[in-house]
Amino acid sequence: MKKLIAILVVFMLPSVMLASEADLVIPNAIKEQRILYWGFLITIAGLLFGFYQFLQVKKIRAHQSMLNVAQVIFETSKTYLIQQGKFILILFAFIGTAVAFYFGFLSVNPETGEHIFGVGGVLLILAWMVLGILGSYSVAWFGIRMNTLANSRMAFASLERKPIKLLNIPLNAGMSIGVVLISLELIMMLVILMFVPGEFAGACFIGFAIGESLGASALRIAGGIFTKIADIGSDLMKVIFKIGEDDPRNPGTIADCVGDNAGDSVGPTADGFETYGVTGVALISFILLAITEPALQTQLLVWIFVMRILMIITSIVSFWVNGAITKAKFSNVDELDFEIPLTSLVWITSILSIAVTFVASYFLIGDIGNNLWIPLSIIISSGTLGAALIPEFTKIFTSPKSTHVLEVVEASKEGGASLNILSGLVAGNFSAFWQGMVFFFLMFIAYYASNYGLGEIMIYPSIFAFGLVAFGMLGMGPVTIAVDSYGPVTDNAQSIYELSLIEENKAEVTTEIEKEFGFTPDFEKSKYYLEANDGAGNTFKATAKPVLIGTAVVGATTMIFALILVIEHSLGIKPEEILNLLNPFTIFGFLLGGAVIYWFSGASIQAVTTGASRAVAYIKEHINLDTDAPKKADVEKSREVVKICTKYAQRGMLNIFIAIFSFALAFAFLSAPNGNVEGMIDADKLVAAAPVSLFVSYLISIAFFGLYQAIFMANAGGAWDNAKKVIEVDMQEKGSDLHAASVVGDTVGDPFKDTSSVALNPIIKFTTLFGLLAMEIAISPSFRALAPYFGIGFLIIALYFVYKSFYKMRINS
Amino acid sequence: MKKLIAILVVFMLPSVMLASEADLVIPNAIKEQRILYWGFLITIAGLLFGFYQFLQVKKIRAHQSMLNVAQVIFETSKTYLIQQGKFILILFAFIGTAVAFYFGFLSVNPETGEHIFGVGGVLLILAWMVLGILGSYSVAWFGIRMNTLANSRMAFASLERKPIKLLNIPLNAGMSIGVVLISLELIMMLVILMFVPGEFAGACFIGFAIGESLGASALRIAGGIFTKIADIGSDLMKVIFKIGEDDPRNPGTIADCVGDNAGDSVGPTADGFETYGVTGVALISFILLAITEPALQTQLLVWIFVMRILMIITSIVSFWVNGAITKAKFSNVDELDFEIPLTSLVWITSILSIAVTFVASYFLIGDIGNNLWIPLSIIISSGTLGAALIPEFTKIFTSPKSTHVLEVVEASKEGGASLNILSGLVAGNFSAFWQGMVFFFLMFIAYYASNYGLGEIMIYPSIFAFGLVAFGMLGMGPVTIAVDSYGPVTDNAQSIYELSLIEENKAEVTTEIEKEFGFTPDFEKSKYYLEANDGAGNTFKATAKPVLIGTAVVGATTMIFALILVIEHSLGIKPEEILNLLNPFTIFGFLLGGAVIYWFSGASIQAVTTGASRAVAYIKEHINLDTDAPKKADVEKSREVVKICTKYAQRGMLNIFIAIFSFALAFAFLSAPNGNVEGMIDADKLVAAAPVSLFVSYLISIAFFGLYQAIFMANAGGAWDNAKKVIEVDMQEKGSDLHAASVVGDTVGDPFKDTSSVALNPIIKFTTLFGLLAMEIAISPSFRALAPYFGIGFLIIALYFVYKSFYKMRINS
Repeated sequence: MKKLIAILVVFMLPSVMLASEADLVIPNAIKEQRILYWGFLITIAGLLFGFYQFLQVKKIRAHQSMLNVAQVIFETSKTYLIQQGKFILILFAFIGTAVAFYFGFLSVNPETGEHIFGVGGVLLILAWMVLGILGSYSVAWFGIRMNTLANSRMAFASLERKPIKLLNIPLNAGMSIGVVLISLELIMMLVILMFVPGEFAGACFIGFAIGESLGASALRIAGGIFTKIADIGSDLMKVIFKIGEDDPRNPGTIADCVGDNAGDSVGPTADGFETYGVTGVALISFILLAITEPALQTQLLVWIFVMRILMIITSIVSFWVNGAITKAKFSNVDELDFEIPLTSLVWITSILSIAVTFVASYFLIGDIGNNLWIPLSIIISSGTLGAALIPEFTKIFTSPKSTHVLEVVEASKEGGASLNILSGLVAGNFSAFWQGMVFFFLMFIAYYASNYGLGEIMIYPSIFAFGLVAFGMLGMGPVTIAVDSYGPVTDNAQSIYELSLIEENKAEVTTEIEKEFGFTPDFEKSKYYLEANDGAGNTFKATAKPVLIGTAVVGATTMIFALILVIEHSLGIKPEEILNLLNPFTIFGFLLGGAVIYWFSGASIQAVTTGASRAVAYIKEHINLDTDAPKKADVEKSREVVKICTKYAQRGMLNIFIAIFSFALAFAFLSAPNGNVEGMIDADKLVAAAPVSLFVSYLISIAFFGLYQAIFMANAGGAWDNAKKVIEVDMQEKGSDLHAASVVGDTVGDPFKDTSSVALNPIIKFTTLFGLLAMEIAISPSFRALAPYFGIGFLIIALYFVYKSFYKMRINS
Repeated sequence: MKKLIAILVVFMLPSVMLASEADLVIPNAIKEQRILYWGFLITIAGLLFGFYQFLQVKKIRAHQSMLNVAQVIFETSKTYLIQQGKFILILFAFIGTAVAFYFGFLSVNPETGEHIFGVGGVLLILAWMVLGILGSYSVAWFGIRMNTLANSRMAFASLERKPIKLLNIPLNAGMSIGVVLISLELIMMLVILMFVPGEFAGACFIGFAIGESLGASALRIAGGIFTKIADIGSDLMKVIFKIGEDDPRNPGTIADCVGDNAGDSVGPTADGFETYGVTGVALISFILLAITEPALQTQLLVWIFVMRILMIITSIVSFWVNGAITKAKFSNVDELDFEIPLTSLVWITSILSIAVTFVASYFLIGDIGNNLWIPLSIIISSGTLGAALIPEFTKIFTSPKSTHVLEVVEASKEGGASLNILSGLVAGNFSAFWQGMVFFFLMFIAYYASNYGLGEIMIYPSIFAFGLVAFGMLGMGPVTIAVDSYGPVTDNAQSIYELSLIEENKAEVTTEIEKEFGFTPDFEKSKYYLEANDGAGNTFKATAKPVLIGTAVVGATTMIFALILVIEHSLGIKPEEILNLLNPFTIFGFLLGGAVIYWFSGASIQAVTTGASRAVAYIKEHINLDTDAPKKADVEKSREVVKICTKYAQRGMLNIFIAIFSFALAFAFLSAPNGNVEGMIDADKLVAAAPVSLFVSYLISIAFFGLYQAIFMANAGGAWDNAKKVIEVDMQEKGSDLHAASVVGDTVGDPFKDTSSVALNPIIKFTTLFGLLAMEIAISPSFRALAPYFGIGFLIIALYFVYKSFYKMRINS
C-alpha cells in the first residue's frame, strides 16, 4: 500500500506547483498551532518504536551458517544500492537543473515582474529536493538492512516448530519499516510546515516531492527489472535441470535473493516513502487552493496533519492488539494459516482507523457548519474501508485457496503451460473488472457524501472528495507497508535455508542446535512452514498492489483540480468549455495515453526478457551439477549473474525514464494554446485554448489505462505464483510435468506483477509531476509560441527511446 | 477489414436512432437522382463477378481424396451453422420485441402525442431487421461454401509446383466473397434509400442495422470461441504425443478445420457485412443531421453512395491489374514470397481508391464553396491510406521476417515457453503503441483538414471528419475482405493435404495424377508451399484486424455527435456543459468502460480454456496411435470434438451476450437525468443532467480500451503464430523443445487473436447500438423517474452473468 499511493499524491501535487507562485502561501497562523508540536513527539516516538522493533529482531539468534548467507546477500545488495545511488545522482543533475531553472528564472511575480525566489530561495528548494531523495534512499537502506537481518532469523526459527515465530519475525520487521518510514516522512514535513517561512514552504514542499519521486522511481523501475531477471534466471533451472528451488549450485540463487531485496524491498520502501510524502504535500495544497478563508485553511490543515499523526498510533495499537489475539489463539499451535493473522491485522487497523477518523474529525472540525465533519469522515472512511476491502478482492484471484488459482492448477492438468497461462490471464482480467467495480463503489460513496454541504466551503467538491478517498486509503499506512514487506523476508528465508546447507549434515547440526539453542530441529516441518508462509507473503504482496494503484487513480481525478486553476488563472477561460468530450484534443489525449501505457508494459518486459535470456545462458553454461562437485554457492559466478541483472536493469530503466519524461514534456508543450488567448474575444479564445485539453486527457488516460493494466498484471502474476505454490506445497508435485507447467506461468507472471505493474505508479507520477511543470511553462506567454517546436523535439526524442527500448534491448543486439 | 469496421458504423448509427423520430427524413429529391439507379447495375455486375469467380474456383479439379475431406468439413460446418441459425432466431425473438416496443410504443410525436409508426410501419422495420440478419447469415454461408471448395483445390494444386496457383486460388475465392458481400449490402441499402418512403427509410435503416449486428455478433463471438477450442485441442496433441500437424488419427483435426471456417470465415464474413452496412447507415444519418439544407444533404448522400459503388469497380480493377503484374513476374517461378503480391494488391487498391476519391469528389461536390471537395477528399484519403499503412505496421510485429517475431524465436531458445510468451507479449504491447500513434496521425490529418471550411456547412466539423476517416478506411472493402479470407483457405488446405492421406501411397497416386491430371506431383515441395502460404495467410489475417478495430475507434468519436443531439434536443442543454472532465460522472464512465473490456477479455478466454481442456481430455483418451491402427480420420470421434466445441462456444457466447447487453442497458438507464430538467433554471439543469455524461464516457472508454486491447491481443497472437511458423518452416525444428515452446506461445495466442480481439468489435457495437436506444428511453420524460431502478436491475443481471462467465464456466463446474 505504500508506493502506488504515491500516484494519488502526484495527482494532487500539481495543484501545488501550478499555483506555487501566488496561491500557495501557508497561513502563518499554522505556526501557532501547538497541537502540531505534539506531532514531533509522536513521530519521534514512532521512530523509537521502529528502532526498538529493529533491535528486537536483530537480537534473535540464528545458526551461523544462515547468518553467513544473509551477510552475503546484504553485501551484494549494498553493492547494488550504491550503484543505484550513483545513478540517481546523475538524474538529479538533470532534473535539479530543470527545477532550478524553473524556480530561478521562470517564477516571476506577474504584477511586479520580479523573480519570486532569490538565490537563497532556489538553494533552499534544491536542498529540500536533496532531502527528498535522501529520504527515499535512506528508508530503502533501512528496509534492506532490516530484511537481511530478519531473513536468516526466520530461516532458523522455522526449525523450532513454532509457526507463530515465523509469523512474528517478518511482521515485526515489516512494522519496523512501516513505522520508521511514516515517522521520518512526517517529521520532515512538519519541519517544512512549522519552520520554513510561509511564502517558501509551498516551493520547498514541491522540491521535496520531486526529490522523493526521483529517488523512488529510479529504485522502483530498476529494482523491478533486476529482481525478475534473477528470479526467472534461477527458476528456469528448476525445469531445465530438474534441480530444486534455491539449489546452492545454481549461480542464480544468490542473485535471486538480492533481487528480492532490490525489487520487493528497496523498490516498495522508497516508493512508499514518496507516496506518503507527495500525498501529504498534495493535501496541503489542496486545502490552500480549494478554500479561500485562511482560518478554515488552518483548521483543515491541522485536521489533516493530526489525522496523519494519529495514524502512527492507531497502527501500532492495532499491531499490539492483533499480536495479543494471535498469541492467545496460535501461540502453541502446530499448524497456522499465516494469512489469518495478517488479514485480521488489516481489518483491525481499518476499523480502528475509521473510528479514530470520526472521533478526531468531531473534535477538530466539528464546529464547521452543516455538520461537515460527518460527510468528510465518511469520505475518508470509504478510502480506509477500501484499503481493507481491496485486499479481500485481491485474494479472490490470488490466494492459494481461491477458485481462480485452483482453476489455473486445473487448467494446467490437461493443457500444460498453455492453459496455465490462459487461465492466469483470465484471473487477471476478471480481477481488473471486479476491482474496478470496487473503485467505482468507493468513489461513488465519496461523490454522494460530497453532495452534503461540501460545496458550500469549496469549489468542485466531488473532485476534492475523490482526493480524500485516496487519503483514506493511506490511512493505515504503516500496516499496509508491514504486510507488503512481509513477502521479501519469507522469500529470502526459504532461500537462506537451502543455501545454508543445514540439511547436509543433519545429525551434527541437530546436536549443535540442541546444545547451543536448546531445541531439537525439525527439518521436515521446517520446509513446509517456510513454503506455506511464503504463500501468505505472496498473497499479501499481491493485496497491497491494487490498493496503491487504486489511490493513484482515485487521486488522479483530483489532478483536474490543478488544471482548473491553470486554465482559469492563466487563460481566463471556464475550464468546462475546453475540457470536454467534444473537443478533438480530448480524444487525442485519450489515444496517446493508452499508447504510452501499452508501450511501457512492453518495454519493461523486454528488459526482463533480454536480461533473463542472458542470465539463463550464463547459468546454463556455468552451473556445475557433477555429483562430486561441492554443493555450495559459488560467489564468483553468483556475482556474475548479479552483474547481468544490474546491467539490464540500468539500461532498461534509462530508456524508460527518458522516454516517459520526454513524452510528458512533449505532450505538455504540444498542448500550448495558440496565440495570445488572454486578449481574444470569447469564441476565439476557446478555439485557441482547445489544445490544452490534450494534456489533461492524456493524464487521465494514463491513470485509467495504468489502473487496469496494473491490476490485471499484478493479479495474473499473483495467481500464477500461488498456483505453483499449490502444486508444490499442497499437491507435493515438484518435478512433475504439472509443476513444470506452473513454473512457466510463474515466470511469465514475474515481470507482470513485480516489474510492469508496480512501476506504473512512478510512471504515472513522473508524467504528471514533470509534465505539469512543463505545462505551466508551455502556457506562460513568453514561451507559448515556441512550445510546439519544443514539443515536437521532445516527441522525437521520446519516439527514439521507444524505438531503442526494443531494438537496442534485443537479445541479439 | 470487414467486421471491425462495423464498430465505426455502430458509433455513427446512434445518430440515426436518436433522431429517428423527427430528424431522420430522407429528402424525396434523392429518389430523382438518376445516377443512383446506375448503382443497381454496378452492384448486380459485382454480384455476377463474384459468382463468376466462384465458378472459376469450383471448376478447378482436384484429387478425389481431397474433395472428400473438404466435403466432410463442409457438412460439419453446415451442422454448426444451422445450429447457430437457430440460436440467432431465439435472440431475434428477444431483441425484436424490444425494437417493436420502441418503435411501436415509445416513438411518439412530441407535438401531437401520436405514435409515429403504425402497425404497418413497425412490421416494415421488423422485416428489414430480418433482412439484416439474413444478410449477415447468408454471406456467412456463401463464405463457407466458397472456402470449402477452394481449400481442396489449393491442397491439390500444391502438388503441381506452380506456386502462383497457390496464390490465385485463395485470392480468387477471397475476392469472390468480398465483392459479393459488398454488392449485396449496397443493393439492400439502395432499395431502402430509393424505394422506401422518406419518413420510414430512417427507421428501416435502423432495423436493418440492428438485424445485421445481431446476426454478426452471434456468429462472431461463438465462432471465435469454437475455432480456438478446436485449434488448441488439436495443437496440444503435437506436444503431448509428438505427432505432426493435422495427423488424421487426431480427432481434433477435423474440428480444427471446421473451426477455421466457423471462426476465420463465418465470423469475419458476417461481421464484414454488418460493418459495411452499419457504416453506410451511419453515414446517411450523419449527413442528414449535420447539415440542415436539403439540397446539400441530397448532394452529399449521392456523393457517399457513388463513392461506395465506385469502390466495387476500383477493387476489381486493382485485382486485375495486380493479377497481371503477378502473372508477369511470378508465373513460372519456383519460389514465391506469397506476401509480396498480397501487399502490392493492397497498395494498388489504396492508391487507385485515393485517386478515384479525388476525381469523383471533384465532379460530384466540386461546386460546393471553399473548394470543400479538397479537404473532404484529403480526409477520406487519410483513411484509405490508413487501410494500407496499418497492415504495414502490423507486419512489423507479426510477419515471419519481422524483428519482433525473430525475437520471440530467439527468446525461446534460452528461455523456452516462458520467454516465448513474454516476448510475444512485448510484440503485442509495442504494436499497440505504434499503431496507436498511426491512428493519432491519421486523425490529426483529418482534424487539420477539417479546419479548412468544413465548419461553414455543418456543426462539429472535426468530429464529422473522424467519421469520414473510418469511411475512408473502408474504401477498399472487397480487397480487405479478400486478404482476410485468404487465411482460412490456406489453413484448411494444409489440413486437407494431410487428411487426404495422399502421401500414404505415393507411387500409385503419382501414376494416377500423371494419367488423370497430366503432371507429376512433387510431394516434398508441396508441403513447403502450403506452409509458406499459410504464413502469408496468418500475416494478412493479422493485418486486417487492427484496421477494423481502428475504424471502430475513429468512428467512435463521431458517436459523440449523436449524443450532442440527444442532449441538445431532449434536455435543452449545451452538451459541453455536462460532457466534460470535471463532471464526476464522466470519470465514472471511464472507470466502468475499462472494467467491462477487461472482463470481456477474461470471459472469452475462459470459455476457450474450459472448452479446450475438455477437448484435450477427450482427445487424449480417444486418440489411437497404435501402429497397426488405420491412419484415417475417425468421423465419430471427430464429431464428438465438434460437439464439445459447439457446447462451450454457445455457453460462452450466451453469458457474454447477456452481460454486455445488460451493461449497456444498465449504464444507459443509470445515466438518466434527475427530474424535469426541461423546466429547471440553468444551474439546476446542469446538476440534474450531469449523470448523462456517464454513458457517453462509458462508450468512449470501451472504444479506447477496446482498441488497445484488441490490437495488443491480435498482434501478440500473430507474433506467436508466425514464430512457430519460422521454427517449423525456416528452421525445420519440428518436434524439438524449441518447437514445443513455440506451440505453447501459439496456443496462448489463439484466443488472443481469434477470439477476444476480433470479438471486441461486436461488443462495442452492441453496447453502442442497444445502449443508445436505451438511453433515449431513459431520457424520455415518462420513463425518466423509473430508469435508475431499471438500471440497478440490469446491473444486477449483468453482474450475475459476469459471475457466471467464470464460476459456471470452470473446468470442474
